[in-house]
Amino acid sequence: MEKGAIVKVSYSGYVDGKLFDTTNEELAKEEGIYNPGIRYGPITVIVGQGMLIPGLDEALLEMEVGEEKELELPPEKAFGKRDPSKIRLVPLREFKKHKINPVVGMPVTINNLVGRVVSINGGRVLVDFNHELAGKTVKYILKVEEVVEKPEDVVKELLKLFIPRLNMEEIKVEVREKEVNITIPGEMLIPLRDIGVLIKVVADEILKRLDIEKVSFIEEFKRKDEKSQ
Amino acid sequence: MEKGAIVKVSYSGYVDGKLFDTTNEELAKEEGIYNPGIRYGPITVIVGQGMLIPGLDEALLEMEVGEEKELELPPEKAFGKRDPSKIRLVPLREFKKHKINPVVGMPVTINNLVGRVVSINGGRVLVDFNHELAGKTVKYILKVEEVVEKPEDVVKELLKLFIPRLNMEEIKVEVREKEVNITIPGEMLIPLRDIGVLIKVVADEILKRLDIEKVSFIEEFKRKDEKSQ
Repeated sequence: MEKGAIVKVSYSGYVDGKLFDTTNEELAKEEGIYNPGIRYGPITVIVGQGMLIPGLDEALLEMEVGEEKELELPPEKAFGKRDPSKIRLVPLREFKKHKINPVVGMPVTINNLVGRVVSINGGRVLVDFNHELAGKTVKYILKVEEVVEKPEDVVKELLKLFIPRLNMEEIKVEVREKEVNITIPGEMLIPLRDIGVLIKVVADEILKRLDIEKVSFIEEFKRKDEKSQ
Repeated sequence: MEKGAIVKVSYSGYVDGKLFDTTNEELAKEEGIYNPGIRYGPITVIVGQGMLIPGLDEALLEMEVGEEKELELPPEKAFGKRDPSKIRLVPLREFKKHKINPVVGMPVTINNLVGRVVSINGGRVLVDFNHELAGKTVKYILKVEEVVEKPEDVVKELLKLFIPRLNMEEIKVEVREKEVNITIPGEMLIPLRDIGVLIKVVADEILKRLDIEKVSFIEEFKRKDEKSQ
């Protein structure tokens, strides 16, 4: 794979012989880690953009479509080394303020950092803000399922990656000889405050990958039936 | 004029016989109130939308194109009655905090309210937050210069009214039989955080006024020369 390629990959990650993450729904169910809130199946990534942990991202550069690899990744290629400075004492009153009663092992979010309670001692709570898998060597089975190359699919996958809140069923993508037209019902943009920036990013990514001269986003507002009657 | 009509008007406003506002550049210079930061000339308004003070807005409903009227407007049809509760004591330290040394007559902005220093007494400063012309009967000479009716101009004036930060020279407006296309260089939208809402408002206003079925906003991103070489 080349850096910048759009690929669909499936993977399963293990630590100490135990599955902790997978794109395979059946496997997740068998191994007891199924989460109904997750959409299973191959995921789309841009190779070399840090969308996966470093070891997987780098492995993709060496792989072909359809290839499957087993990878053993040391912490620095996976979820990082354990950083002792990320284990901190938090005053118990911080928890009381948010009406939380800390329990050892409990996951907590403090100042947007996710941690886990290690111990409670008098008025102080020891919280480990390291990633749960920091310091661990993990095993991954990684497979490149597909390289997205058809121009229309390239456009659609980029839209899904950068503007995930768009409902793709309502969007029309046309690739003509030298231009791409993306037609969107105008109302869909109302909640997207960053849309001006987002469409620029998507347009740039499309121009990088396709041999075209122009990308147009078209927002259509149609007369509602009750008004035309 | 009908409510909702888009018109260009010119006006001059007088209080106690003295000009305080005008759309006429020559007159402003003659009367010593010229402000180089203002763009003079007729201004575009939508009739009945509160874009002008009530007395002017109401007068427009009765006027024809080309007509000029002299109007005497009591406070409630102009800048409102004087409200004694809008005269407030502000501690001197509030001014010191912002490194302002208050002087009688000085205009000040406190909590986004514009006021004028009335008196200073010990540690207290009396500030009048009423509009400078509140309580005044004013005289206006109002003229309807033009009714904007040509479909292309209707679209352009609505864009200027609702999205004043767009550079109209870069925007292409096409009115076809049953649709309007507004083409915008994509990069122009980046700084406009509310753009999703703004284009919806403009589209609705266009659909209200023109006998068309669809309004499309088209943002174009073209390949830059350095990349195509």
